[in-house]
Amino acid sequence: MSELHGYYMEDISVGMTAVFSKTVTEADITLFAGVSGDTNPLHLDAEFAGQSRFKGRIAHGMLSASFISTILGTKLPGPGGIYMSQSLRFMAPVKAGDTVVARAIVEEITPEKNRIRMKTECTVGDIVVITGEAVAMVPSRPE
Amino acid sequence: MSELHGYYMEDISVGMTAVFSKTVTEADITLFAGVSGDTNPLHLDAEFAGQSRFKGRIAHGMLSASFISTILGTKLPGPGGIYMSQSLRFMAPVKAGDTVVARAIVEEITPEKNRIRMKTECTVGDIVVITGEAVAMVPSRPE
Amino acid sequence: MSELHGYYMEDISVGMTAVFSKTVTEADITLFAGVSGDTNPLHLDAEFAGQSRFKGRIAHGMLSASFISTILGTKLPGPGGIYMSQSLRFMAPVKAGDTVVARAIVEEITPEKNRIRMKTECTVGDIVVITGEAVAMVPSRPE
Amino acid sequence: MSELHGYYMEDISVGMTAVFSKTVTEADITLFAGVSGDTNPLHLDAEFAGQSRFKGRIAHGMLSASFISTILGTKLPGPGGIYMSQSLRFMAPVKAGDTVVARAIVEEITPEKNRIRMKTECTVGDIVVITGEAVAMVPSRPE
Repeated sequence: MSELHGYYMEDISVGMTAVFSKTVTEADITLFAGVSGDTNPLHLDAEFAGQSRFKGRIAHGMLSASFISTILGTKLPGPGGIYMSQSLRFMAPVKAGDTVVARAIVEEITPEKNRIRMKTECTVGDIVVITGEAVAMVPSRPE
Repeated sequence: MSELHGYYMEDISVGMTAVFSKTVTEADITLFAGVSGDTNPLHLDAEFAGQSRFKGRIAHGMLSASFISTILGTKLPGPGGIYMSQSLRFMAPVKAGDTVVARAIVEEITPEKNRIRMKTECTVGDIVVITGEAVAMVPSRPE
Repeated sequence: MSELHGYYMEDISVGMTAVFSKTVTEADITLFAGVSGDTNPLHLDAEFAGQSRFKGRIAHGMLSASFISTILGTKLPGPGGIYMSQSLRFMAPVKAGDTVVARAIVEEITPEKNRIRMKTECTVGDIVVITGEAVAMVPSRPE
Repeated sequence: MSELHGYYMEDISVGMTAVFSKTVTEADITLFAGVSGDTNPLHLDAEFAGQSRFKGRIAHGMLSASFISTILGTKLPGPGGIYMSQSLRFMAPVKAGDTVVARAIVEEITPEKNRIRMKTECTVGDIVVITGEAVAMVPSRPE
């Protein structure tokens, strides 16, 4: 099924970028609570959340972070790559109805280790909501 | 709604720990694909995944990582705390049917900044599948 | 389990009709993305979709089409019938909150082949959103 | 968000192909029943299905058909294209655990109408489970 394979090491250059974006809905928050088990009332309870610094319910930070995983798994490097590590700084909240744009940019390539390092960022409009870095292992093209 | 509130800064000491565990099912993988958009065939396609180094389908790494968020959001520090950052190193795969135990241990407390740093880890049996660190902001107890 | 069985060939006449209707919710769209893998931003990303000809997110066409399958599988002919073919023309978009009414009408019966042909249609209010035809095999009543 | 856009008319040639594949799990069948409403016991009831010609539960045909939608919506032509029509012939059953490979091949291009016609097919191993045709509208590249 080589048709499903994403980029090989030889295909990747510094500066390459990929984007995934998704509007976070109430359904996403409910389903994410279900699969993760994270039932923090900040996400599920409008009264509790209304009294917080966020003045209302917010989405799970890890839900937005998962959109970065989507880039790595489906676009850059895509299928065949292996997710090694991810750092995440949660900068600002995401609310239901917000459209989160996740973006990864290749910053460093280490061919002898088959690794790439990417800057990863999630934004809502002009607001950066998550910053961080991802490292992936990318296979060499079969000869 | 103070009954829902988690720990305050004054309640936390180095060495405190909390655990969340969950068996990852096929349903979790399908639902996580839906909320994240991550349709990497490594997670969804047994034939593609069978030819990979993992010899079969594996769960999304971010799904197991979300269990760490569950600890912070519901147990330590729990509701009222704010997730600042998380680092994740994906060490080993998780398959459907595996029970992932996520654990956080307080390693450092910075009272003047209302911050705590925790070691976070996910294991399946004796295998460490994710390691990393979390930082959370924890409010002081209202006087 | 004959109580579960739907219509037999002898029970069906031209002009018979059946309806299934369902309000399409945000949750349906997220779940359909998960089971199908279809993460087209037209369905998931309000900003991308807002710039499209549809001026906003729309549901997957195949989600509405699946309501036709529901008629065949549960009502006409119902359990025991076999879905042979379906044609679908996607005429207009469906948005979250729309109630889709799917309808099938028997147009032709071919007893010697145990087949029926039905006109199938999905509407939202007065708007036809999908048209097409279905063919099913229907067993004869056991003697 | 032009980065999210798929192929433009000028990018497409006869013979282009794209693939999406997915292992159909019990969870997919349950969730598809939920979103579609198709609760035919052939899909949900092992005893009823065991007495059918299929000798056991099978997945909804429209679930496999939805993988064709995934190709059109995410790969060929991808985001920005519009799904016009689909024909489906259900040739053989799909069971839980089967890996369905959906494939689309461009067979005809009608530039003056911005339309492409594709042969679409789903297979499990060597068995063709669905055949049919899709028509999509594909925008011209902005000047």
